[in-house]
Amino acid sequence: MWRGVWAEWGRFLPRTEKTPELTLYEGGTPLLPAPRLAEWVGGGVRLYLKFEGQNPTGSFKDRGMVVAVAKALEAGARHLVCASTGNTSASAAAYAAAAGIRASVLIPAGKIARGKLAQAARYGARILAVRGNFDQALAVARQLAESRPELALVNSVNPMRLEGQKTAAFEVVEQLGEAPDVLALPVGNAGNITAYWMGFLEYRRAGLSRKLPRLFGFQAEGAAPLVLGHPVERPETVATAIRIGRPASGEKALAAARDSGGAILAVSDAEILEAYAAVARLSGLFAEPASAAPVAGLRRLAAEGRLEAGQRVVAVLTGNGLKDPETALGGDLVERSVESVEAEPRAVAERLLAGSGVA
Amino acid sequence: MWRGVWAEWGRFLPRTEKTPELTLYEGGTPLLPAPRLAEWVGGGVRLYLKFEGQNPTGSFKDRGMVVAVAKALEAGARHLVCASTGNTSASAAAYAAAAGIRASVLIPAGKIARGKLAQAARYGARILAVRGNFDQALAVARQLAESRPELALVNSVNPMRLEGQKTAAFEVVEQLGEAPDVLALPVGNAGNITAYWMGFLEYRRAGLSRKLPRLFGFQAEGAAPLVLGHPVERPETVATAIRIGRPASGEKALAAARDSGGAILAVSDAEILEAYAAVARLSGLFAEPASAAPVAGLRRLAAEGRLEAGQRVVAVLTGNGLKDPETALGGDLVERSVESVEAEPRAVAERLLAGSGVA
Repeated sequence: MWRGVWAEWGRFLPRTEKTPELTLYEGGTPLLPAPRLAEWVGGGVRLYLKFEGQNPTGSFKDRGMVVAVAKALEAGARHLVCASTGNTSASAAAYAAAAGIRASVLIPAGKIARGKLAQAARYGARILAVRGNFDQALAVARQLAESRPELALVNSVNPMRLEGQKTAAFEVVEQLGEAPDVLALPVGNAGNITAYWMGFLEYRRAGLSRKLPRLFGFQAEGAAPLVLGHPVERPETVATAIRIGRPASGEKALAAARDSGGAILAVSDAEILEAYAAVARLSGLFAEPASAAPVAGLRRLAAEGRLEAGQRVVAVLTGNGLKDPETALGGDLVERSVESVEAEPRAVAERLLAGSGVA
Repeated sequence: MWRGVWAEWGRFLPRTEKTPELTLYEGGTPLLPAPRLAEWVGGGVRLYLKFEGQNPTGSFKDRGMVVAVAKALEAGARHLVCASTGNTSASAAAYAAAAGIRASVLIPAGKIARGKLAQAARYGARILAVRGNFDQALAVARQLAESRPELALVNSVNPMRLEGQKTAAFEVVEQLGEAPDVLALPVGNAGNITAYWMGFLEYRRAGLSRKLPRLFGFQAEGAAPLVLGHPVERPETVATAIRIGRPASGEKALAAARDSGGAILAVSDAEILEAYAAVARLSGLFAEPASAAPVAGLRRLAAEGRLEAGQRVVAVLTGNGLKDPETALGGDLVERSVESVEAEPRAVAERLLAGSGVA
């Protein structure tokens, strides 16, 4: 059974004799063939979903966090700090709980999204609402971590995060037997596309694969600084996990996309929501809205004739759909799905079989 | 990497040449040593958490559902039916989506818990609100499935469910190298404790283990028919996944507990909520309230001197904490966790380090 990122991929990680054992059994996530969703995407591609929502805290962040936290412990840290309102804070808090150290999450004061912070709070993190914007919160966290060895900054500026995240590329190669032709993923802070590229390059350098995939990153139109070429002051999108106007790793992300022969593109919220619904109904995996961006993007690429039939295409579903209950309930989804009927077999049978191809 | 319940455990399952391949990569869930939570439990035990929340739909139900659905497909079914308002409906809907067939969920009319049904609706299930109580909804589903071969009933009365669920016992033995001394789990419909007992017996019979664990099942005091010895008309508990007054597998569950030298006991909602908070803070795994019942129960057993120091004890965390956002937000958890501070390093530092052992 899977033993976690350090135990499985340690030979590719900066492990020393002093690196403590730490795991919540992150990584080792499924790569699901999704033929019905592939039809929806179009272009005749063979589509696979890398379901990172199955990580311990429900997102890909755990891969990088376990590496960052173990290295921080090795360096003597006893208190994790991050500026985050989303998946990063949950992951940092979970590994702090696992390691028995503290975690503090800095957020900009004034717009506290309770739902997004509940997970970090459950793992016991302390939350500091800083009277300033996100960049100021991050700047303060950075300064503090530099001056106090007991504090470790685990934002994505911590290079250990990408080291851990690159392991997902290794897994994709192992699961397919070779690198795919195309890999598509959401782009927010832009670290993950860089990490995948590092991973595919490193695995090939080690002689464990021969191909390199084209990487396509998808931003939401309302939060697309890398597509627009400038920061977005007020990013807006239903895909909250990629609602970022000033990505930390933008240059590297653009380079990864370009060097691989891919691109960073934008999709609309309407396309994201359509793909969000299609993924669950046509694959059986439920992912958060940001994870639908690459599926929406692939559909657009297929419509534009930019994918080839028979190509092996991987879409990375970065987070679990249960992380975003508000969008899950999506207006009146449940109400629209419910039909009332008498407690009588014939009545229920009629309703059940109505409009189906099975009666 | 893990290949799912059929591929990994098929030799213990009713597989024929005609059984279709079906998987969302369920099973293979972590067994996490939890030394800090063990201290909280007391009694000097060595505590391990079997985290079933890491299954594809976030609960242990996926193990049994993948077996039930594959066998239903083999028998020609093209439409799954279940009476359920919770984790079973989500799991049935997900495997229907994976297999490309339909799923209909029957619920008693009048008390539609939107949050609990959203997951099934996302996977594309149809929801029928039957004008009657749960038992009537189940009776109708049963009658229909008996008379129409294209319909398959996947409630826990379907014996294939337990076949799949027993595989968790195999994994615990593999992960520990031997069966544990004690295994504790929540008891609602009471199928899972029966399935674990089947699994431990079968694995020993196959010569793959030598010991058998004592099994302790925990109900919530407001929904404890097996402890009271009679059905509960209006079951009530915060642990909604075990809010069941008339369990389907009660007799077998009592027999499993008795034969193993264990028992089925009840814990209060207050104890459940205390354990719910402790699990996340002290282990880094976030589980739904029902999953906290066995941890609360073990703590009580330890306080009563009924556990021995050094014993290996497994608590099964049956569902993911993200499944129950309302309890996750728990009144004013986030508000209580948030402190405001100026965007100034010294101010943040003072606040961060206050009251800690690290300054």
